Order: sequence, then C-alpha cells, then structure tokens
Amino acid sequence: MKIQGLRGTRDFYPELMQELNYIFSKWREVSKKYGYQEFDGPLLEPLELWTLKSGNEIPEQTYRFKDKSDSDIAVRPELTPTLARMIAAKQKELTKPIKWFSIGRFWRYEAPQSGRLREFFQFNVDCLGTDSMKADTEVIAMAIEVMIAFGCTKDDFYIRISNRKLINAIFNEMDIKPESIKELSRLIDKSDKIGEKEFESGLKGLGLKDAQIKKLKNFLSLKSLDKIKDLDENGKSGLRELKELLSYLESYEFSEYVELDLSIMRGFDYYTSTVFEVFDRKKELRAIAGGGRYDDLVKDFGGEPCAGIGFGMGDVVLGLFLKNLGKFPSSVNGIDYFIAPVSEDVYPKAVEIGSILRKKYSVCIDVTGRSLSKLMDYANSIKAKSLVIVGKKDLDKKEVTVRQMDTGKEEKLKLDKLGNL
Amino acid sequence: MKIQGLRGTRDFYPELMQELNYIFSKWREVSKKYGYQEFDGPLLEPLELWTLKSGNEIPEQTYRFKDKSDSDIAVRPELTPTLARMIAAKQKELTKPIKWFSIGRFWRYEAPQSGRLREFFQFNVDCLGTDSMKADTEVIAMAIEVMIAFGCTKDDFYIRISNRKLINAIFNEMDIKPESIKELSRLIDKSDKIGEKEFESGLKGLGLKDAQIKKLKNFLSLKSLDKIKDLDENGKSGLRELKELLSYLESYEFSEYVELDLSIMRGFDYYTSTVFEVFDRKKELRAIAGGGRYDDLVKDFGGEPCAGIGFGMGDVVLGLFLKNLGKFPSSVNGIDYFIAPVSEDVYPKAVEIGSILRKKYSVCIDVTGRSLSKLMDYANSIKAKSLVIVGKKDLDKKEVTVRQMDTGKEEKLKLDKLGNL
Repeated sequence: MKIQGLRGTRDFYPELMQELNYIFSKWREVSKKYGYQEFDGPLLEPLELWTLKSGNEIPEQTYRFKDKSDSDIAVRPELTPTLARMIAAKQKELTKPIKWFSIGRFWRYEAPQSGRLREFFQFNVDCLGTDSMKADTEVIAMAIEVMIAFGCTKDDFYIRISNRKLINAIFNEMDIKPESIKELSRLIDKSDKIGEKEFESGLKGLGLKDAQIKKLKNFLSLKSLDKIKDLDENGKSGLRELKELLSYLESYEFSEYVELDLSIMRGFDYYTSTVFEVFDRKKELRAIAGGGRYDDLVKDFGGEPCAGIGFGMGDVVLGLFLKNLGKFPSSVNGIDYFIAPVSEDVYPKAVEIGSILRKKYSVCIDVTGRSLSKLMDYANSIKAKSLVIVGKKDLDKKEVTVRQMDTGKEEKLKLDKLGNL
Repeated sequence: MKIQGLRGTRDFYPELMQELNYIFSKWREVSKKYGYQEFDGPLLEPLELWTLKSGNEIPEQTYRFKDKSDSDIAVRPELTPTLARMIAAKQKELTKPIKWFSIGRFWRYEAPQSGRLREFFQFNVDCLGTDSMKADTEVIAMAIEVMIAFGCTKDDFYIRISNRKLINAIFNEMDIKPESIKELSRLIDKSDKIGEKEFESGLKGLGLKDAQIKKLKNFLSLKSLDKIKDLDENGKSGLRELKELLSYLESYEFSEYVELDLSIMRGFDYYTSTVFEVFDRKKELRAIAGGGRYDDLVKDFGGEPCAGIGFGMGDVVLGLFLKNLGKFPSSVNGIDYFIAPVSEDVYPKAVEIGSILRKKYSVCIDVTGRSLSKLMDYANSIKAKSLVIVGKKDLDKKEVTVRQMDTGKEEKLKLDKLGNL
C-alpha cells in the first residue's frame, strides 16, 4: 500500500531541494555580510512558551500534544518565543547588541492553499539589546538586501512600515474601547483583502461611529507623517521613531523600497513599536516577510528587560514569488565526472581513478555493471559533464577515454595526467 | 518566569551552531564528491509509515499524537521509511541507481544520556536501484571518507561489517525457533556491552543448549570468512556478498578501516543483507553510524521491488567523538570589519562605508551610539578583525582610521581606497 505524506507538506526531491538550498544560501550570505551569527532552538518546545502570554492567535494553529511524561508539547509555529527564552536563559553572558539569524522548520495547522503550507522553513533575523532605530533600520535593510540578492528590484517588491505606538495613540484618541482593539487591529490588518465595503461594515459592527470611521480611514491612508498631530506621549514617541527610521533608511539608499502604511498591524501581540512587511508590488501574494520591535518579550519570558527587533521570512510565499518572476537559477548542479568501467575486471581501476578525481571534482562511479550505452544515458540523466570510460585496451596503454557529454567529443588521457584535470 | 527547553534538547547558541554547521559542511562535501544529491522529507509523517511493518522497535520511542483532523502523526524518528515512501511515489520517473543524501532533524523519546538526546540531526546516505555489492562498498566508503574528512584516522574509528543472510543461515542451521530470533538478535547486538556472563545466561534464558551456545559464540567471534561452511542457499549468498564487499573495499584502499564482526545485528527489521556500524576504536561510545541493505523496503511501501543500501550518522555521538579527539576547528568565525561611528552626525557615512565593504566582507555597524572604548570592547567580543573608526575630523580629510584588532596598529585610509580593501 502506498502511503501519502501529510496534507500541506512537501517531499523535497533533489530538484526542489536545490531550490530550497538556493534560498538558504542567499539568506546565509546576506546575514554573514551583516555580521549576524546563526543560531537555532529545538523543534519541539514546551507549549507554555505560547500560552504564557495569552491572547495570541498562534496557539490555535499550533500542533500540540502530550508526550509520555504528560508534558504539553508544541511543534514550534514561529521562532521568536524560543529566541526570547534563549536570551533570558543566558542574558548575562551574551554581549549586546545580540545580532543573530536562524533558518529553521516550522509547523502550523492551517488550511493548505497557495502560499500557505503546514510545514515551512523560515529565515529569522533579530537584533536585541538596543532600542535604537538604527537596529530597526539595519534589520529592514537586511530584508531588502535579501530580496536584492535574489535578483529582485524595487519594481518587484516593497516594504510597508508602521509603528504600533502611533496606531495605538490613534485608537486612544478615537476612544476605542480596549476590548475592541484586538478585533479592530485584525480588521485593519485584512482591510486590504476584504475591500472597502466589508471593512466599513466591520468597523460599524465594532461600534464605531461614522465620524470615527472617517477619521480612521483618513489616518490609515496617510502616505506621509507630516500631517499627524494631537498625539499622546506614546504616540509622539512612535511618530519620532518612525521618522528616524525613515531617515536612517535614506543612508542605506533604500528609501525607494519603503512605503509608509499605517494599516500594517502584524498578528503577533508582542510587537511594541516598529512593524513592517515585505510585499510583492503586484499584491498577488501574501506578505513575503514581516517583523517588528518586541521590547517587552524577553522580560515576559523571565529575563531582564531587553529591547529587540526582528523579522521572519518564510520559504513558501518567497518561493512562489521567485518562481513567478523566473528568479530561480535554471541549471541544476550536475556531476563533474561519471566513471564507466566497461567490464568487471577494470572496476578496481575505476575506483582508483575516482579517488584521484574526487580530490577536486564530484565523481559518480557506476555500481550496476550495465552496458556502456546504458551508462551514457544514465550519465546524461544525472547531468554529468564528462564521462570517463575505463576499458581494458585503454588501460593496457595506461590511458582512459574522456568524453565531453555536451559535444560528444572524446579524447584519450594518460593515467598519470588525471591529477592535472 | 523562565521557561526551560524540553529535556533531551539543545539550544544552538552561535558557538554550538558553528560546530553543527561544521559537521553539516563535511557531510555535504563528501556527499557531493561522490555525486550524491540532497533530498529531504517532512518532519511530521503519518504514523502508518512505522506501524505498517510492525515488530519494529521504533514506534515505542516515537513522538506521536493525533492532529485536529484525528490523524495519527509521528515526529519522524528516522528517515528510511520516508525515503521508501518517496521512492514508491515516483518510482517510474526516477533514474536508477538513485544516489541521495539528506541532513535532517529527528526525535526519539528516550532517556537522555551521554550520546543520546531526544532531538538530534542525522546524515543519511542511500543508493537504491541495484543489489550490487559495489553500491554497498560505495556507501561504506562514504562513511569512511566522512570520518577522514573530520581528520580521523584508522586509529580513531573502524567499521564493523556483517550480513543478515549469513547470520540468519546460522540461526537456521542451529534450529533457533523463529519466535526467539528477534530476542536473540537483540541479545547478540548488545553482547559487547553486557559482558560474557550475562550474554550466556541470556542465551540460556532463550532455551539454547550448551552446544548451541558454544557454536554461536564460536561463529560470532570469527575474524575471517574462510572457515564458514554448511550454509543454506541464503547463507551462501550472504557469504558471497560479504566476500565481494570486502574485496571491493580493497579497491578503495579502505580495508584497514574495516573488520568482520558477525555480532553486528542493527535494530531495524528492514535490513536484508549487508549491515555495518562505525565505531570508535576505544569502544567508549555508542555506534557513530550504522546502516545496511534493505531490498524489500520500497516494495513494503507499495512500490515495485527496489533494492537499496544506506546508512545514518547522527550528530550527537559524532560530536562527542570529535570533541574528545579535539577535531573541531578551534577558531570561531569572526567578523571582518566593525564600523564605529564616533558621533551621530557621521552615522550616514558609516552606513555608506559599510555598504562598500560588504561587497567583499562581513561587516558589523554599531547600532547603539555607545562610546568608542565600549565599541572596541564589543568589536573584540564579536572577534572583529579590524575596526573602522568613522570620525568627523577624519571625514573632513576624506579618510577613516582602520585599526587591526590583534596588533592595535592604526592607519588612515582614504575613502576612495575603501573599495581596494
């Protein structure tokens, strides 16, 4: 009986695995250029990491179970709580600012659809130990650099930026009831998708008056910070942060990638200031990446207060995006040499030749004993660049035949010249 | 409240992550040299993959649960069933022999102890589509090459090899009752650990007579295949395979790494012929790697019959082994340049300099605005090789100060020479 893999999962056959490794290589390349160090945590975590700070949407989608010792286990749906736990555990030993990145697997129990799978990989970039907007800028710059590293331009993607303090001040000023803020935030977050009419009726459903709705919509549509006034202290601080952030981004010459968008909320409750998302310009896909500042999180996990900013970028939406734009490198890495022993008695010599070539090249030796014509087909199918035919007659003359697979050109090569290849 | 990670898991802080990445890099390097292609499967799988072929020890240690749709889920404890499932699903499209490797995470609910954790990484190498002992040899050669790539010699490790057909023939010839074979295999597998006395009393407990025990012990202690006789057809085939394998290993010049050890059983039921394990010479640790031939597995998973051989090498025992031998590279990769802006107004210039240097180097820019002396401490702590001090006076002369962190030597560098660094 054939068994299928679970719904919403992928089998990474070599071709798909190469795409994934290509994505990983760019994530690592940019992180290292910025001096970030790689870390990771366990894939299973105590469920407590997510229930400790409740009111979060995540536990609903979390794969969870009890292990044999009756402990509540979560298959991690995101990395940030693990990061906060790890920082809290070694806070005194770690030199701040902590600049870390991670590439890991995650699971969420969601309805699989385009851009959304149950198992995915996520790149996380985090800078902790400072509340300077320079850190926010650096992290956003890295998100932009990653997209550029994939060959994308400002016509392909952009970053939408907001600040939670600012939006909270607006809610405050509009006298939104505290118990409605969560629902309202969600509604704003999806306002782009649901259309104006549904958005308005949603706002009415939350008890907003016409004047409030007008004011809110007006605010959310702002493309510049200049006209914002009448803010509380918290709001003023958010406004100042956002202005600083936008000005620092100019130093990176990344302003053209960035747009103010006060409707960006981000689902996670732990964000306290900057929030941002990476989107495709065509707005056909979900967010490619998203993140923000979480200044209370390490404290919430039992550590000393430690400001932090970070983002996550999943492989699924990104993969779709790159595929749509034709940005994946087309060539599958082939093998340098395929070694074909034409008879059983020359196999030891084929192995010896393989060992010499492996010092520099990727080498595949036949293990089947099939005929030369079948081996040529096989060498083609595995995209071997050259074929080394090891035959008795050639060996008597201390040579082998080397065939270029693309041109079909064959040449004799003396055995003592193999090391020069 | 501080939350701990789960028992038997590791938090990969950057230093430990570097060790792990070092292990991964060697695993990948050898696999590519041998022309093997990387693949992977999902981390969660239908539990069915393990219960389908029962009588296996694995399900007992498997993390399992029901998801929201009441499906039985396993957190994978090993890769081979996933591989068999993937081969069975695309058998017609895949060119044989299939030469694949994988590096992934796995979970087993075991009592954590030295060399055994609940979460671990495992390197898997598999060659499917041929029953030639050349494939077994290649795969074993790769296990040896990996150990050599870590800087280990024949004095550090060795491979113990056996063949299931051969041992089954001996059981057969000794008239061991079929229902005792499983228990007997287990007992033999741990005979090394438990000592002679306990081994003998275990054999008696399984109903073996003194003559049988003597014969079995005699057989298990054989260091050469020459004296083995009186085998059934299956046993003769196993003997022939083992002889062939040992002779092919001579071609690789790897004979000195290999020992015949007929007490090697391997826990998994799916092995049908060759079985082998990599051990430290000092026999202080568990097996570093283990594998074998599983010619019926793809068929068991609903595919056409497809012979296969492979091994798994975990990171935990290997890591202990390398650490004990001092084989981990000592230096932690540092950062090439740390850029220290001495005042707020030069920050944009610091960013600009960072962008130029990042074309070739890893560059960390200060995001805290701390004093120069504090920044020097920080640059030291992150192992920066050079410090670029960006100050107003220098900039007026279109230059910066570059300090070598090891010698403390400082030099002025013109801004237009930055690209030449």
